[in-house]
Amino acid sequence: MSEQKYVFFFGEEKGTLGERIKDVLGGKGAGLSQMMSAGFSVPPGFTISTDVCLLFYRSKGKLPEEYLREEQRQLEKLEKVMGKKLGDENDPLLVSVRSGAKFSMPGMMDTILNLGLNDASVAGLAARTGNERLAYDAFRRFIQMFGSVVLGVGKALFEEELLELKERKGVSQDTELDAKDLKELCTRFKEQIRREKGVEFPQDAREQLAAARDAVFRSWNNPRAVFYRKQHGIPDSLGTAVNVQAMVFGNMGATSGTGVGFTRNPSTGERKFYGEFLMNAQGEDVVAGIRTPRPVDELAGEMPEVYRELSDIVQKLEQYYKDMQDFEFTIQEGRLYILQTRTGKRTGSAAVKIAIDMQKEGLISKDEALLRVPPEALDQLLHRQIDRRQKFEVLARGLAASPGAASGAAVFTADAAVEWSREGKSVILVRNETNPDDIHGMHASEGILTSTGGMTSHAAVVARGMGKSCVAGCSAVKVNEKERSFTVGKTTVKEGDLITIDGSSGDVILGEVPTVEPKVSGEFAEFMGWADEVRRLKVRANADVPADAAQARAFGAEGIGLCRTEHMFFAEERLPVVQRMIMYAAEAKAAEREVQALASQLEKASGKEKERLEKQLSEAAERMREPMAIYKGALEELLPFQRSDFVGLFKEMEGFPVTIRTLDPPLHEFLPRREELMVELALLEERKAPSDEIESKKALLRRVNDLHEFNPMLGHRGCRLGIAFPEITEMQARAIFEAACQLAVEGKRVIPEVMIPLVGHVNEFVRQKEIVVRVAEETMARHKVKVDYLVGTMIEVPRAAITSDEIAREAQFFSFGTNDLTQMTFGFSRDDAGKFLPDYVESGVLEIDPFVTIDKKGVGGLTRWSVEKGRQARKDLKVGICGEHGGEPVTVNFCHEIGLDYVSCSPFRVPIARLSAAQAQLREAGVRESLTV
Amino acid sequence: MSEQKYVFFFGEEKGTLGERIKDVLGGKGAGLSQMMSAGFSVPPGFTISTDVCLLFYRSKGKLPEEYLREEQRQLEKLEKVMGKKLGDENDPLLVSVRSGAKFSMPGMMDTILNLGLNDASVAGLAARTGNERLAYDAFRRFIQMFGSVVLGVGKALFEEELLELKERKGVSQDTELDAKDLKELCTRFKEQIRREKGVEFPQDAREQLAAARDAVFRSWNNPRAVFYRKQHGIPDSLGTAVNVQAMVFGNMGATSGTGVGFTRNPSTGERKFYGEFLMNAQGEDVVAGIRTPRPVDELAGEMPEVYRELSDIVQKLEQYYKDMQDFEFTIQEGRLYILQTRTGKRTGSAAVKIAIDMQKEGLISKDEALLRVPPEALDQLLHRQIDRRQKFEVLARGLAASPGAASGAAVFTADAAVEWSREGKSVILVRNETNPDDIHGMHASEGILTSTGGMTSHAAVVARGMGKSCVAGCSAVKVNEKERSFTVGKTTVKEGDLITIDGSSGDVILGEVPTVEPKVSGEFAEFMGWADEVRRLKVRANADVPADAAQARAFGAEGIGLCRTEHMFFAEERLPVVQRMIMYAAEAKAAEREVQALASQLEKASGKEKERLEKQLSEAAERMREPMAIYKGALEELLPFQRSDFVGLFKEMEGFPVTIRTLDPPLHEFLPRREELMVELALLEERKAPSDEIESKKALLRRVNDLHEFNPMLGHRGCRLGIAFPEITEMQARAIFEAACQLAVEGKRVIPEVMIPLVGHVNEFVRQKEIVVRVAEETMARHKVKVDYLVGTMIEVPRAAITSDEIAREAQFFSFGTNDLTQMTFGFSRDDAGKFLPDYVESGVLEIDPFVTIDKKGVGGLTRWSVEKGRQARKDLKVGICGEHGGEPVTVNFCHEIGLDYVSCSPFRVPIARLSAAQAQLREAGVRESLTV
Repeated sequence: MSEQKYVFFFGEEKGTLGERIKDVLGGKGAGLSQMMSAGFSVPPGFTISTDVCLLFYRSKGKLPEEYLREEQRQLEKLEKVMGKKLGDENDPLLVSVRSGAKFSMPGMMDTILNLGLNDASVAGLAARTGNERLAYDAFRRFIQMFGSVVLGVGKALFEEELLELKERKGVSQDTELDAKDLKELCTRFKEQIRREKGVEFPQDAREQLAAARDAVFRSWNNPRAVFYRKQHGIPDSLGTAVNVQAMVFGNMGATSGTGVGFTRNPSTGERKFYGEFLMNAQGEDVVAGIRTPRPVDELAGEMPEVYRELSDIVQKLEQYYKDMQDFEFTIQEGRLYILQTRTGKRTGSAAVKIAIDMQKEGLISKDEALLRVPPEALDQLLHRQIDRRQKFEVLARGLAASPGAASGAAVFTADAAVEWSREGKSVILVRNETNPDDIHGMHASEGILTSTGGMTSHAAVVARGMGKSCVAGCSAVKVNEKERSFTVGKTTVKEGDLITIDGSSGDVILGEVPTVEPKVSGEFAEFMGWADEVRRLKVRANADVPADAAQARAFGAEGIGLCRTEHMFFAEERLPVVQRMIMYAAEAKAAEREVQALASQLEKASGKEKERLEKQLSEAAERMREPMAIYKGALEELLPFQRSDFVGLFKEMEGFPVTIRTLDPPLHEFLPRREELMVELALLEERKAPSDEIESKKALLRRVNDLHEFNPMLGHRGCRLGIAFPEITEMQARAIFEAACQLAVEGKRVIPEVMIPLVGHVNEFVRQKEIVVRVAEETMARHKVKVDYLVGTMIEVPRAAITSDEIAREAQFFSFGTNDLTQMTFGFSRDDAGKFLPDYVESGVLEIDPFVTIDKKGVGGLTRWSVEKGRQARKDLKVGICGEHGGEPVTVNFCHEIGLDYVSCSPFRVPIARLSAAQAQLREAGVRESLTV
Repeated sequence: MSEQKYVFFFGEEKGTLGERIKDVLGGKGAGLSQMMSAGFSVPPGFTISTDVCLLFYRSKGKLPEEYLREEQRQLEKLEKVMGKKLGDENDPLLVSVRSGAKFSMPGMMDTILNLGLNDASVAGLAARTGNERLAYDAFRRFIQMFGSVVLGVGKALFEEELLELKERKGVSQDTELDAKDLKELCTRFKEQIRREKGVEFPQDAREQLAAARDAVFRSWNNPRAVFYRKQHGIPDSLGTAVNVQAMVFGNMGATSGTGVGFTRNPSTGERKFYGEFLMNAQGEDVVAGIRTPRPVDELAGEMPEVYRELSDIVQKLEQYYKDMQDFEFTIQEGRLYILQTRTGKRTGSAAVKIAIDMQKEGLISKDEALLRVPPEALDQLLHRQIDRRQKFEVLARGLAASPGAASGAAVFTADAAVEWSREGKSVILVRNETNPDDIHGMHASEGILTSTGGMTSHAAVVARGMGKSCVAGCSAVKVNEKERSFTVGKTTVKEGDLITIDGSSGDVILGEVPTVEPKVSGEFAEFMGWADEVRRLKVRANADVPADAAQARAFGAEGIGLCRTEHMFFAEERLPVVQRMIMYAAEAKAAEREVQALASQLEKASGKEKERLEKQLSEAAERMREPMAIYKGALEELLPFQRSDFVGLFKEMEGFPVTIRTLDPPLHEFLPRREELMVELALLEERKAPSDEIESKKALLRRVNDLHEFNPMLGHRGCRLGIAFPEITEMQARAIFEAACQLAVEGKRVIPEVMIPLVGHVNEFVRQKEIVVRVAEETMARHKVKVDYLVGTMIEVPRAAITSDEIAREAQFFSFGTNDLTQMTFGFSRDDAGKFLPDYVESGVLEIDPFVTIDKKGVGGLTRWSVEKGRQARKDLKVGICGEHGGEPVTVNFCHEIGLDYVSCSPFRVPIARLSAAQAQLREAGVRESLTV
């Protein structure tokens, strides 16, 4: 061991360890050493390297003399630098002893503060600080810490002593104890140690240090640290370093003080030193809010030298870290120490401004600037926010389902939302859950609050699409729709009562809370321009109506990745037509099948059999006539509506692809609810209503019953509808291509991409494609115009992903419907998962909510497989994602990694997706994210 | 072309073509040639090889002279053999001209019969047969066929002529036309040809033959044949052969006749020539049932020579084909011809008997015998069957969901089923669908009929488990539970009306139909023994109660692969306890979470905050007390029930593994139905019932609402319950291990395998395993006994299959739950798929119902992947299947292929699975299934 260096004074390392610095000094030690080298005045100290930890275990806890001598030399150096001595009776040096492994293991290992205090030196500290209470408080804390960490006395014993003392003094707060009390406590604590462990609390400071060091080494192998390493894949063989650092005090009198600083304004991003300080105070005092801190500018008058030094440090910090820093400082008797510096938290708008400014200042490159802004932060620039400077009480917290804050009168039905808003009032729609019936009410509301449903529930998805604030799955809110109220615990909110929801945090607040309007600067556009230059992934929007498409274009969307045609079906004038279509579709098709079966039997029949069949056939044809006419008539009525919607969408997205999905949801979503009809019918019968009224209700219930499903998510929906009712697909294809041709004739460039939903078997796709292609060719021929179009499919059923090779031979594009793919891959109903998913995430069964961020191993594994197999079968297969994940940064990064062509998300998330896509590209190219020590 | 032979007289080939025989002669031609070679007297003829077809296309329809001379020589040979000449005026040779490609393309190409008739020869035929009507009927059919197939005249034109003639004669049946009428028809048909095509019907028989041959060649490329080949992957380049064969007539007088024969009795399998015949008749006469055929024995008296020849043929056929044959024969003027022979259809019991007998006779090996019995045929040996000799009318047809026939009074509720059966009456339970509430009624019934639900619906699964007959998803049956009746079209069946269902065919029949009791012979056991010697796959049963386990053992099950513990919860005395547990579980756990949260806040708090939290904590603890006590009390009550069930199961399965699945279904399955409660509450309110009654109903509804799910299949079920309510898993584990230890102490060998359902993420499994292992170890320690046990998981969620490597590192066995895996992989709810799945299968979107036979590419692909990944992670991973597929022969074969260790199925399917497993092994070993020509 003669050659090897085991202990490093901060700053002494100076690059000699090279890449191995963290291996040897641990993360914290490396940081302290580098800061010191960079010229920041951190409280001095030294790092005992990880090698010593290994040595400690090898030597069974008895470190060699040679090493101990080296440690002794470094300690003496520290005493010299600080001008104080450990354990000194008059002016003691106090140190902290902290663990610090290569990888951060927060809270897993032990720490000891105020080391160096004993019965004698505590008096010296009291004298130097002129604060006896402070000295004895520090001492009792040290004894407590040393007692439990080093000597293994149960913490509860110390707590009991403290409690007993307070009771005896008749006080409830620790702060109410005076210096005498604390002195007594020190005595009692030492007695506890004696009683419990049969040893004396060590008065010798060197002995204290050695014992603390060994305790930290031992804590490397305590059970929770071992468990943590196992969980995080950190090798047991690394060992921990130990940092011994001088403690500094800001409460040593008039020339001492403490404060926090930001190198720029963390709210606005303005380039100006910003911060707060208190003279003759400890850091806790700033945090505790007992005294009011002063703006850091005022320090210029108080201690001009120190202020100048601080301003200088601000420059240096930014030069060194190339980012805005949040740092703590302490002035001990006129001498400035930087205790800690870290990348400063900032608002979204500050993040953008700082990134742009730093690029212009030449501190960072454009690429680095792009990596500086967390994509989610952009939400703040796009949505109204709660003014967090105000005081308010949070009533309940749900899922932050769609960002932005909104206040308004609580209403409990979609119709009430419309009425109240017509009277000019802002409303928040509160429901157990929303469904497609509620769309008009959601449009009329400022925000939506639901008690059930997760991040991809109907309410959440639609609200995000509309850019409205939404708090979903707030289970503490018990809604009573009938009585038009909700309760949270003992609080009741009635219709008309004002509430505020914050869709960025999930908070539900009683009353109206002031909010801050979003501001989008010209610099923002410039910044987004940088992102667009970098990214490879295209970004499209999910938009169902022309207004959303326009919004999406304004946010930079390069096409529509998902237009849910059925959302157009809920408009007031259309719904009755849609209902008519649905009510008669099944009847018409059943009769048609009967007719076909009879006709084919008839072909082979002869004689009497033939006559009988002919009669049956004409009867069946008669039975088919009416429902078929109603069904087809309704489709004809819907055609112009759909066509004009598509004309609007194509116009807004001229020159960009528009992906239109054919009818997807189960048909009963469009019909009255079964259980309500059952209640209505029971009441009509009970009241002996006229029999025709009862019969018609019965007939309605029968049709609704016929469409009822136990698990609609896995039922008759998606392309299964289009296969059962090809006329619906045909009508939709006609609407799409008539709209496209009409605009193409006018010379406009339209690029429709027709998307078949819920395909699980290639044959399903083939049947639907045949219809689309036939209608497309017919329509183009009729209009004498050519339109570039594609026919592709959603990949949202696991089987489709598994058989992607077969499907890609037929489909021109894939779009991953990751909502459904997640539902089916996990077997989680997004509407019901609220019952267990939050607990799963909270208790660590799942690391993430897979409806928010893609589950890379499971759902993502299927997706990756699908892309590979699909492209093997069709080289130019276009692949995108249109699930709710498409605007989530981690997922966008994953989409980039697996080689998708585009992501599609709700309009308000388009900027987030653009930035995420740029970051994914930069990460791939290996651009350094930030300077980490 | 000089060297090549283009035309082959039947039997002339004699192995010269070797393996290429089907390439050259086509399937049909090869068969005819081989039969002739083997000495069977088939009507002679020759095959024009497929090479001529290619030549025909190459030469643009003009075949070379050299070829035509070869064909001419063969025709002359045929005339010589038959002693008749084509087109002869007195005794014409008639021939059939048929296509015959290498691969069968049924009905795709053209056929012409009775070729050789013309205005002159028809008279000769009339004279020879003494039947003018017959001759002219043959002639008009020939003209019609020739006209449409060769000359391209529309069929409808001939049909119209026929219709017009019948109208004119005032008759409705073709058979009412006499020889004169038919003669007139021939004239009119020829006129039609002249008018339509401007050509004369060719009188020259050689010309007819050439034209017919060319028409068959052309039909190789007709659109439906091309489409068929594309669909079935048959290369276009193969071409078709043409078979020209002498037509023989059994109606040429007293020494002519026709019949069908079986080499053994197809009903019983008895080794005795069995058949029927008619003298002076054509084959159609036997089929049409106008005359009653006579037992073939009687032919011995009639024509002893022929009978002897036939008996000889029976021997030869079995020697040649090594299987029971079903053959058609015709005697033309004393000369016997075999027209066709094929493997004879037989009943299940005949299949077993024949296989065993043939093995004993030395005709086939044991292995071949095993391959001779279709596994599904064993059902007939195990279940009561409808006596198909009886006449009855089928009212409707549903899915053949659980085999066997049953008759009884229709009842519409489970309670009614119990009442009626207590009175000693047989009942059939008729429901829209069944649910766990109905179990007692299903037990009391002979069979179950449902109008919705598929092959894996509740009714189907439970009925199969019970070995009861079930017809499911019979959508023609409209059930009105309230009025206790169902209708099919205009027929109404009321409570008490007798019906019969056949779960083997899906038939629903009005009234009682005689049935045949199953018979299981000693030979059957011997046969199953052969299967057991061969198979590698183990076969277990799905059984929930000791009686089922005993049944399963009797059928040869080697353990239990799935015990659904929740099925035990529905027993009369247990359900209220289960309901109590469920009602309070959620409330108790919610309160517990609150208590825990407060306790952890309290740890960090001090002062006033601490006091406040202490108060809150004691309130929350008070709130938790009652529901927690009720919840845990209910679990304690359930424990002895479960334990005694397991004791029973372990006893029945001593020495064999018993796989017990922890609680799986969504909890609301055990509660009253939500919509019914809503109706009840509305009525109580309408009737102004006492407010306490209303309030208690409301409270009940509230709890049921809390548990309500939109998609219960994807909701809070499976291990998600065990994670939310670990006390339930703990109780079940205690019951299992207390039962196991109790028996182990008595010296019995028990092998429990605890199975965690619906795992999607390895962490879910880990959490549940921890509980099971802890309880197991504690219990064994308490009983001072060691029990071999495993803890494993169902693989039924796609994500589990995808991440099988992670899961196998923790789980000791996998059991594929292919019902759920199919549901989620396809996104098909098994309860709702009845709305579209039958149409999917019928219209060919899917080839199979994936709930019946495993979908090899999708679900099977996942399964294969899972087995591979699982075994990579854990070499000795035990892998089985316990879905409904586990007893389906094709699936069992697949399970063998992918290397599973065992299959598990309902007890009544165990013999089927045993045989299927043996067949899979034999196929893998390349044992020839049967002789095909």
